[in-house]
Amino acid sequence: MTVATLGEHAVLARILSRLPKTPTSVLVGPGDDAAIVAPERNQRLVVTTDAVVEGVHFSRPAFSPADVGHKALAVNLSDLAAMGAEPRWSLLSLVLPGSALVADIEALVDGYVALARRHGVAVVGGNITRTEGPLVVDVTAGGAVRPRRWLTRAGAKPGDHVYVSGTIGGALAGLEMMQAGRRETGDGSRETGDGSRETAPDPACIARQLRPEPRVRLGLAMARGRAARAAMDLSDGLADALRQVSAASGCGVRIDAAALPIEPGAAAWWDARGADAVMAAVAGGEDYELLFAVPAKGGGRLRAARRHAADPPLTRIGAFTARAGELVVTRDGVDEPLPAGFEHFGRG
Amino acid sequence: MTVATLGEHAVLARILSRLPKTPTSVLVGPGDDAAIVAPERNQRLVVTTDAVVEGVHFSRPAFSPADVGHKALAVNLSDLAAMGAEPRWSLLSLVLPGSALVADIEALVDGYVALARRHGVAVVGGNITRTEGPLVVDVTAGGAVRPRRWLTRAGAKPGDHVYVSGTIGGALAGLEMMQAGRRETGDGSRETGDGSRETAPDPACIARQLRPEPRVRLGLAMARGRAARAAMDLSDGLADALRQVSAASGCGVRIDAAALPIEPGAAAWWDARGADAVMAAVAGGEDYELLFAVPAKGGGRLRAARRHAADPPLTRIGAFTARAGELVVTRDGVDEPLPAGFEHFGRG
Repeated sequence: MTVATLGEHAVLARILSRLPKTPTSVLVGPGDDAAIVAPERNQRLVVTTDAVVEGVHFSRPAFSPADVGHKALAVNLSDLAAMGAEPRWSLLSLVLPGSALVADIEALVDGYVALARRHGVAVVGGNITRTEGPLVVDVTAGGAVRPRRWLTRAGAKPGDHVYVSGTIGGALAGLEMMQAGRRETGDGSRETGDGSRETAPDPACIARQLRPEPRVRLGLAMARGRAARAAMDLSDGLADALRQVSAASGCGVRIDAAALPIEPGAAAWWDARGADAVMAAVAGGEDYELLFAVPAKGGGRLRAARRHAADPPLTRIGAFTARAGELVVTRDGVDEPLPAGFEHFGRG
Repeated sequence: MTVATLGEHAVLARILSRLPKTPTSVLVGPGDDAAIVAPERNQRLVVTTDAVVEGVHFSRPAFSPADVGHKALAVNLSDLAAMGAEPRWSLLSLVLPGSALVADIEALVDGYVALARRHGVAVVGGNITRTEGPLVVDVTAGGAVRPRRWLTRAGAKPGDHVYVSGTIGGALAGLEMMQAGRRETGDGSRETGDGSRETAPDPACIARQLRPEPRVRLGLAMARGRAARAAMDLSDGLADALRQVSAASGCGVRIDAAALPIEPGAAAWWDARGADAVMAAVAGGEDYELLFAVPAKGGGRLRAARRHAADPPLTRIGAFTARAGELVVTRDGVDEPLPAGFEHFGRG
């Protein structure tokens, strides 16, 4: 049985089953967006690690070296944001092919550092290692939370509203646009065989794919203000996040297709191709927005948190239910099953 | 200019030059064995990251999957030990080829977890990512130090004695023995062309290569007991460590060839091949022993620290000098220059 045949989620489950029980100083262990450790009394340390791999998470020339550096840190900051943590430091581990250009590595570091500066993240160390294979950028990020003010995937209760930040679908549509651009030379807007004009690539969607913005202030405001009971980032898509938060919380979830904040350029892109934009946006990953479970009567706290982090907007898209295992998208009064999530792992 | 032509140390220097100045909450930043961060007052967090890559740091079948898991954590615990930190938690990031066998990944995790348990290290999280290239195991480890009780590479003073733990040269000789075993079938003991009998592979040397033991208790005892002024682990060899500690401390260093604790099987292996065992052992990497700068009048504290961590023994091999840039091995009354260090990076 190989890793490819078993698949990412099953391999992860096998690994998790082999890890020893964590001691009581580990407040949140493996399986959430990040871990929370209390190495000493009153210390709360949030740590996460995530890698991007050439040929799997990015390819050139669509991604510039600076894009790669940005994204490698952004996906980790997004994990911290999903815990409600304030990012503080990071470690940058580079696994470098001998043929990589030094100028590209420098540009990658510059892209990384630029994002780190914006969020006040100290680059405290790292490592470089050689490889005969593709470039791997593996980042570890650490942050701080106040005692009992963090957010995990567990904690949603039936009746809680489901909120999502920003827009969804843009990053997947952006990826499709870049892939289409590689297949077809030209400006990306072209005549198709049946004479209809296809939608041009949308810079906003491509930017979502290349330069995701971790929702650091929003996660922090929601956690500090106790505005949410659970949170997760949309690294593997809305459908995956809904499934994970529901499972961890022992709830079901129902979302309303009409309420979804689909990125306009993505909707147009899929509509022009006859694709189901709702299901594509729900399944698509890499938007790095945040999903929250907000108590139905928690409007006051929610408004207060939003004043601290007005950008991006939050949209109410449904509610958690008491029926564990229920995963429904309602469209035009009809219930449809939630689509499967997005697996980076299968994209290579 | 590619990464391969520029070389590891120069690439690292280029990267370090692009990192912003760390804030005052970072007590030790990039460039030492690990970083020390003070995210809150009275918090001291020590973090390090290091990766092992198939085809560069290990190859099969010489390394079992459990060996790989062990070594990936061991090299990180060794970095924490070199800071005098007590390891507390780790993150395991696996970059997996689709063709990897799930059973091998499970055995790798088991090898990792077994070492983690022995040192009381909680496995708090991690990540799995797919690759089209070789297996990469990237580990981040975190630990605790008491305020002002950590050890860096800087801090050695002229006249300080140089101590090294355990034996040196075993891991490099073990690697050469495994490589020779792959080239020659049979039991590894064979007739050479000139009729002399070669030395058989030494299990102790091979174990040093496959299963390095991080000197966690020793590093902790030396730091807590203020027995040393500087420390570094021998990941890239004694010569590299002497060079780095001398440079960081603004000292020179002179070591005595006759005093070196060369692993007996390694000395026999090199002697049988007509190689210079002293220079091979001084240059060779991956022993993961610790180097300390100990004040000449610090015998009392040194003995006290050794009572807390009797194993492995410490050997005095020389002294730091006031002549910055002096890097000398004295043999039979003759000064020889310190050999160049060991570069993992060039081994691929």
